[in-house]
Amino acid sequence: MELGVLYSGGKDSTLAALLLEEFYDVTLVTGHFGISDDWKHARETAAAMGFAFDRLELDPDVAREAAARIREDGFPRNGIQQVHRHALERLAEREYDAIADGTRRDDRVPTVSRAQAQSLEDRHEVDYIAPLSGFGRTAVDRLVDARLEVTVGPSEEIDRADYEAELRAIIADEYGPGVVDELFPDHTQTYVTGVRREKE
Amino acid sequence: MELGVLYSGGKDSTLAALLLEEFYDVTLVTGHFGISDDWKHARETAAAMGFAFDRLELDPDVAREAAARIREDGFPRNGIQQVHRHALERLAEREYDAIADGTRRDDRVPTVSRAQAQSLEDRHEVDYIAPLSGFGRTAVDRLVDARLEVTVGPSEEIDRADYEAELRAIIADEYGPGVVDELFPDHTQTYVTGVRREKE
Repeated sequence: MELGVLYSGGKDSTLAALLLEEFYDVTLVTGHFGISDDWKHARETAAAMGFAFDRLELDPDVAREAAARIREDGFPRNGIQQVHRHALERLAEREYDAIADGTRRDDRVPTVSRAQAQSLEDRHEVDYIAPLSGFGRTAVDRLVDARLEVTVGPSEEIDRADYEAELRAIIADEYGPGVVDELFPDHTQTYVTGVRREKE
Repeated sequence: MELGVLYSGGKDSTLAALLLEEFYDVTLVTGHFGISDDWKHARETAAAMGFAFDRLELDPDVAREAAARIREDGFPRNGIQQVHRHALERLAEREYDAIADGTRRDDRVPTVSRAQAQSLEDRHEVDYIAPLSGFGRTAVDRLVDARLEVTVGPSEEIDRADYEAELRAIIADEYGPGVVDELFPDHTQTYVTGVRREKE
């Protein structure tokens, strides 16, 4: 069965791929708006881990709407959520038997409700799987420690391929760079640089 | 990391164990009330699949309360839920780093809410993992087809080691065998007889 995992290069989507690789033929799929080349970092990481890779073109209008929403709200949650749903819809249109993402039990954003999952599955005749949604924060942290090599640092220095980087670029461009720091107060990002496939 | 999976011999708890076995040292743990020897079937299946096995003694008072509740409600849902929570509490008291069960996204029972999961983890300093809670019905069915050999049949003929068998026995004993059929209208049970560990 062919599975496309919505992939950012971060620890959650990497763990999601590792959890499913024994059961599906996994392709890591990175969404991008054509604003930056950050998706290429995800392609490198995918290649280093031995995963197939593809990119997913997202609608720049959705990015601009999300950026305006984030600016209006004063926090990124709803804007990121909007973009995540759009990316899942686009991914579901591809020819995969199943699609997945890295959403966790304790995530505040992005979240995919049971009703949204069912709707996605029914409309696109695809299975939607959130393999980390049954794992709490500590369980995920322990798996990350056991399996992943990661680089941690401030968002602006980490070459991560999630939509946040592109949303930040749009916001900096439209509202000035100072606004970005106000709207994204949580600076730390993690980027995966390697995996261990054996139990320690 | 040592993981105990609450194990019935059915397809959900078997899949849960398969999903986690690359990441944890898995022991299949079957709860029983000491009413029947059905747990031995789970031990056989565990051995055939190469998993470590343990049994978990549950409180017969909880079984009697659950049986009375089911009789009162006229349906098994709440009684089964009561027993499942009790079994998770007991399992969490053991020396595992993490515990898991086979609850799925679309299950009506048993369910473990995010708050219940967090409470279990905090009180017992253990990770609780529900690896199938991010999988819908179709995704689970496809994995079952790809990975498990199963026997399907009426509950009373299937040697399954879940609490339902013992609850049925208590209800038959206390209220008469005819009552069992009224209270458990869904007769079909599935029992796993083998696994395939390679992708097809």
